[in-house]
Amino acid sequence: MNKMIKVDFNSDLGESFGNYKIGLDSEILHQVTSANVACGFHAGDASIMAQTVQLALDKGVAIGAHPGFPDLQGFGRRKIEMNTSDITDIVAYQVGALSAFTPDHKLHHVKAHGALYNMAAKDRLIADAVITGIKLVDPQTIVYGLANSELIKAAQDANMKFAQEVFADRNYQSDGSLVPRSQPNAIISNPAEAAQRALEMVENKSVVSVTGEVVPLAVDSICVHGDNHSAVDLAIEIKKLLLDNQVTVTNKIC
Amino acid sequence: MNKMIKVDFNSDLGESFGNYKIGLDSEILHQVTSANVACGFHAGDASIMAQTVQLALDKGVAIGAHPGFPDLQGFGRRKIEMNTSDITDIVAYQVGALSAFTPDHKLHHVKAHGALYNMAAKDRLIADAVITGIKLVDPQTIVYGLANSELIKAAQDANMKFAQEVFADRNYQSDGSLVPRSQPNAIISNPAEAAQRALEMVENKSVVSVTGEVVPLAVDSICVHGDNHSAVDLAIEIKKLLLDNQVTVTNKIC
Amino acid sequence: MNKMIKVDFNSDLGESFGNYKIGLDSEILHQVTSANVACGFHAGDASIMAQTVQLALDKGVAIGAHPGFPDLQGFGRRKIEMNTSDITDIVAYQVGALSAFTPDHKLHHVKAHGALYNMAAKDRLIADAVITGIKLVDPQTIVYGLANSELIKAAQDANMKFAQEVFADRNYQSDGSLVPRSQPNAIISNPAEAAQRALEMVENKSVVSVTGEVVPLAVDSICVHGDNHSAVDLAIEIKKLLLDNQVTVTNKIC
Amino acid sequence: MNKMIKVDFNSDLGESFGNYKIGLDSEILHQVTSANVACGFHAGDASIMAQTVQLALDKGVAIGAHPGFPDLQGFGRRKIEMNTSDITDIVAYQVGALSAFTPDHKLHHVKAHGALYNMAAKDRLIADAVITGIKLVDPQTIVYGLANSELIKAAQDANMKFAQEVFADRNYQSDGSLVPRSQPNAIISNPAEAAQRALEMVENKSVVSVTGEVVPLAVDSICVHGDNHSAVDLAIEIKKLLLDNQVTVTNKIC
Repeated sequence: MNKMIKVDFNSDLGESFGNYKIGLDSEILHQVTSANVACGFHAGDASIMAQTVQLALDKGVAIGAHPGFPDLQGFGRRKIEMNTSDITDIVAYQVGALSAFTPDHKLHHVKAHGALYNMAAKDRLIADAVITGIKLVDPQTIVYGLANSELIKAAQDANMKFAQEVFADRNYQSDGSLVPRSQPNAIISNPAEAAQRALEMVENKSVVSVTGEVVPLAVDSICVHGDNHSAVDLAIEIKKLLLDNQVTVTNKIC
Repeated sequence: MNKMIKVDFNSDLGESFGNYKIGLDSEILHQVTSANVACGFHAGDASIMAQTVQLALDKGVAIGAHPGFPDLQGFGRRKIEMNTSDITDIVAYQVGALSAFTPDHKLHHVKAHGALYNMAAKDRLIADAVITGIKLVDPQTIVYGLANSELIKAAQDANMKFAQEVFADRNYQSDGSLVPRSQPNAIISNPAEAAQRALEMVENKSVVSVTGEVVPLAVDSICVHGDNHSAVDLAIEIKKLLLDNQVTVTNKIC
Repeated sequence: MNKMIKVDFNSDLGESFGNYKIGLDSEILHQVTSANVACGFHAGDASIMAQTVQLALDKGVAIGAHPGFPDLQGFGRRKIEMNTSDITDIVAYQVGALSAFTPDHKLHHVKAHGALYNMAAKDRLIADAVITGIKLVDPQTIVYGLANSELIKAAQDANMKFAQEVFADRNYQSDGSLVPRSQPNAIISNPAEAAQRALEMVENKSVVSVTGEVVPLAVDSICVHGDNHSAVDLAIEIKKLLLDNQVTVTNKIC
Repeated sequence: MNKMIKVDFNSDLGESFGNYKIGLDSEILHQVTSANVACGFHAGDASIMAQTVQLALDKGVAIGAHPGFPDLQGFGRRKIEMNTSDITDIVAYQVGALSAFTPDHKLHHVKAHGALYNMAAKDRLIADAVITGIKLVDPQTIVYGLANSELIKAAQDANMKFAQEVFADRNYQSDGSLVPRSQPNAIISNPAEAAQRALEMVENKSVVSVTGEVVPLAVDSICVHGDNHSAVDLAIEIKKLLLDNQVTVTNKIC
């Protein structure tokens, strides 16, 4: 019955910089179907980008750009009050830069990073600015964004393809937003529970919030992490449960 | 008779950065037929790039990328001992980034900047690294390089189109290289003399060196500057003399 | 009667960067009694700092540090959501770096720049973070801040010397804050009016707000600008009116 | 008999940056007597510097500055053709910045990093530029440099205190320089052999070069690394052999 259900697995990659290594890229590439490659602003550099694209190609993983704020020290996680025109320009710049390294200069998708991702999820003006930057480079690229977010609405209104993303190891609030990391119940730390949560989201197209409401969610892609061995193990566990339940894990989602 | 002779006029543009303004871009754009747009490493930023591309489009000036070393403080003029693989990657990155802002994501040409330009003119390995980076993004782009340089040879061997560039206001040595700026006779400061020099180079396909030898030179493009009003005036004077002598000034050189 | 009244004149200096020149430093140094020298984060670089310190010493102008956010492209004017511990560290770092270039490694004062200045004026936690960074390097340094701001209160509570700063060419709101630049009546563009305003603030220790209230203000220092010739002319006009009215313009304010 | 012999153990520390972690700082701090703390140009940032100074203070390890080229991506290992005046300024800037975080704003020593260290070892003009930058901040600081190098001569001629540094795990050439890493016999990979080499250098004030000559060497400090567990183990082994032979390991060397 689940054979008709398909979902993408995405992860952030290529976040090393120069002499600095971060993330188990080779390991997580075995699990995911699409890779969000850092573009030199919040992480990554031109050589890391070239190498990461090659690694993803070798594994048949779809390549997307992962543009962020120009803040290597803050890893793109600090809000910067940048005007929307500048946001459009830094998104286009980074997407263009990554495109240089892909065989046909096409990208499967674009997913904003960190503070830019969060700001675009909540602020429609910023969401529009991000979409404008992506569309400038390639109107056929899939926009990845938090399910139900302003970014998804902006992509829709701009006639862009989009993929709604969920997090298996995060609790949700009744309005569909994530419980902030500052709160004690933000994270689902039990891998089996997170995997079960992922399966339910994929099958039911909804999630039960921390306050008990059923929140409808489109689930096109699940975000997993490769920061450390626990994160990779969690990705493996989620994927196994999905496959065992005849869910198709694929990047062919649009 | 000269109607068959054509030459391109190029200038470096978009070298402002954030709040910092440099160069009389709007003025020099009236004179040149092709623009080398800084790509955010030695100068320029994403927003300056977007604006500069628009300015050039408005004037019908052909747009090229002007990649340099990642050294804003040194304006890309300081040699950095970077390995050739990294050079390829930073060239591709910058060319790709600028391509994001052009209508069809194509560039008319690529011209390396500053220390990278000089190193690629003399060192074949570096020249090859630059060419590899350009070709990765677009094998149809024209490579601009110092006439008779290693970069031109590398472009030729890689089956890339190329344009040989000369400087009207610089004296040449008998081997075809420029007299270094550290020497007193490096610069031709008299505008009329520089214009005459440009015309002779274009008509004769050669230049007389400071030691009196006739040095054969292909002359596809003349580099002019927009740093200040004297530079713009010199460009105007050179162009006028060429046009008065029925030389066609055009970017259609390949 | 006014002989007992004294006020300092301060201006931001050393905001050039590498090849990029900004500000009429040599001209404004003739007018001011204290200089806020950029420290390489929002503007300035190590060589500009060394040169600016020398210029100020030559003119007998007191030298202060002008630390800002690490955002050259945004010229330190964009808010960055940085945690308070990191703010303390970047302030100490920049103050220490500038101290390297002063004869006895002492600084007359420290004035935060741009977005950091504005945030520290309104947010007591950020104000405390800035003060902690300054005090770490030198507890004897004078803290410059917007009159009546949170930063002034934080300096007071930390037993630091402080100077309350006013702007002659800006209108004030009834709560003592500046009318935001986004509003049409933010700026007093008439030089004579601005000079008169400065004199009244210095003599009356108050300012009349745009809504007509008399707002008490301590006036230890007046901020003037050297961005362009009009700004320098305004500084000259303000200073002349103050001197004509027997106000002493001096950096000996604490 | 060896009780009169003393030597310092130094290591590079604080080379993490933002989210990027590098080096086993806590572990190597147990072994060394002096720490070279990165200053935010080739590695490190203001917060890492504050933390590293505190770690070193807790362990009673002497704190020195480790200034390098402004090249985070290249980790300060790429030569940059910077003029000597700018080198002086970036050295002073970094030394001043680190001084902000030490209790009395004093530093035990300064050791240049990477390409700057190597260039200052061979080129007297660069050596003088580095010394000028250090002396500007504190003429009492000890200059660390490669034994027999130009930097040591420059320190001597400038009446600065200095410490001559040796490497236990590197082979030497007959002129006292290190065998370049590009050659197969550059590194002594056997820990016991490296420890024995260290002891011989300390006791004999000389080293036997790869071509068999006895090269006289002053040995004030031995450089050890904390990059990984093998490096820390090597430091432990060297130190144990020295202590077993009554060599005093101390930072009180000048």
